[in-house]
Amino acid sequence: MNVYIIGIGLIGGSMSLDIQSTYPEATIYGIDVNDAHLEEALQRQLIHEKATIQNVQNADIVIVTIPVHASIKIIQEVLDTINDDALVIDAGSTKEKICYSIAAHPKRRNFLAAHPIAGTEFSGPSAAVKQLFDGKTNIICEVEKTAFSLQEKALEMFKNLGMRIRYMDPKSHDKHIAYVSHLSHISSFMLGKTVIEKEKNERDIFDLAGSGFASTVRLAKSSPTMWTPIFEQNKTNVIETLDEYIANLQEFKSLMLQDNFEGIYKEMENTNHLKKILKGIE
Amino acid sequence: MNVYIIGIGLIGGSMSLDIQSTYPEATIYGIDVNDAHLEEALQRQLIHEKATIQNVQNADIVIVTIPVHASIKIIQEVLDTINDDALVIDAGSTKEKICYSIAAHPKRRNFLAAHPIAGTEFSGPSAAVKQLFDGKTNIICEVEKTAFSLQEKALEMFKNLGMRIRYMDPKSHDKHIAYVSHLSHISSFMLGKTVIEKEKNERDIFDLAGSGFASTVRLAKSSPTMWTPIFEQNKTNVIETLDEYIANLQEFKSLMLQDNFEGIYKEMENTNHLKKILKGIE
Repeated sequence: MNVYIIGIGLIGGSMSLDIQSTYPEATIYGIDVNDAHLEEALQRQLIHEKATIQNVQNADIVIVTIPVHASIKIIQEVLDTINDDALVIDAGSTKEKICYSIAAHPKRRNFLAAHPIAGTEFSGPSAAVKQLFDGKTNIICEVEKTAFSLQEKALEMFKNLGMRIRYMDPKSHDKHIAYVSHLSHISSFMLGKTVIEKEKNERDIFDLAGSGFASTVRLAKSSPTMWTPIFEQNKTNVIETLDEYIANLQEFKSLMLQDNFEGIYKEMENTNHLKKILKGIE
Repeated sequence: MNVYIIGIGLIGGSMSLDIQSTYPEATIYGIDVNDAHLEEALQRQLIHEKATIQNVQNADIVIVTIPVHASIKIIQEVLDTINDDALVIDAGSTKEKICYSIAAHPKRRNFLAAHPIAGTEFSGPSAAVKQLFDGKTNIICEVEKTAFSLQEKALEMFKNLGMRIRYMDPKSHDKHIAYVSHLSHISSFMLGKTVIEKEKNERDIFDLAGSGFASTVRLAKSSPTMWTPIFEQNKTNVIETLDEYIANLQEFKSLMLQDNFEGIYKEMENTNHLKKILKGIE
């Protein structure tokens, strides 16, 4: 089995490690615009060989794990090049623009749109880890537009990686993921910015930060290269979440200005039941 | 050695566990307005005996770990009652109002104002864990106002608990801690609120949430009873941090509205160096 992974960083590299354990017969080819990353991926045994886009004509499976604006261009090229039985999977954090871009492609049925909800705040081949996807959710969009036999092939692979599947349409995916993922990246980046700006002349103040602060700003370490195109592609939904978040912060502030600390208490109490909701995803 | 712990929850209970290991001769007395908590603390061996405020006349050390508005009243009563050699320590997240409230007390020199930067999002006796304070920072305010021999006694105990000490004046403490702690609690609570509001009719959407979201809203599980008086006592500083945070979010939003994604990239890139700053506190 020839597996081509385009973009051999956190997601692509981690996927490769698990594919190597579950499909020992597979040969993993790496494609990346960053040659240093490819070399590192070889050294770390994330891939067996380097390759180029033209080589995907020999692929059984192509996995595209690059920033979402690049995906749109590359998936088109890949579909143009692959043979009729190859499966192409992406792993992008937005789904509407990508699905739309290949909707009319003659090889549309060779493509499966996926979004594994897995990752860390790190990036690049050095961030790849085994079993990153174990127990995680994989959102699949427009499953009915993928050929039956290739759906089956993909689902078997996801099962071997330990993932559970949720099916959604791309529009709903982008809307909901704006709330449960994209907004928390912005809240984290802006929290980090606020504290850095304030404390730039007093670096040792970070000495005072505890694990609570670290947890809240963890996502502010994420890759801007990965996240800028996500925000661009999901602009409308993300702005809606930002508006609601800012309104809630302003309401909290007015309660404080009015010395309405009973109101402040209720705000927190009402959110406390996240304890129950979040059980199992930490 | 008679140690009285007032408020036998996450902080008081965890402190008790470590004091029991490092001072096996100590008898730990628990005082709490919640009798069910006291019973649980006895069962969990967080305390040896139940006690009341009047009993602190027999104390060598009194540790006050209750919400900061209650602290102000209780520390006064404790100082009125203790003998001349007793040490009284608090562990509150605000320091200015507490220090001010006992500034003129005849037993001011028996009191040491402390803020151990340690904790979890859980509360109550069941949240108490061993070695919670190991490697953590303890901020001590107005150390010069505590009697030498009692400073020494307190520092030895903090050392035995594994804590490193930072000295600050109460005003600076409250200002800086608003940024590195209080603001991240609000950002987390309001993020949780925003997502819950949006998704209330689609509970299974939380299925889509990954570890990134969980990390960012972790603090939204914190106790409203503990946090409401903190926000009340630190109102001015907290509102300042909120204003700056909201302004940064609004700026991020306008960059998006203007399709200035180069600007969005830079915003994230500039915050990325938190990676270095945060090393060691996670």
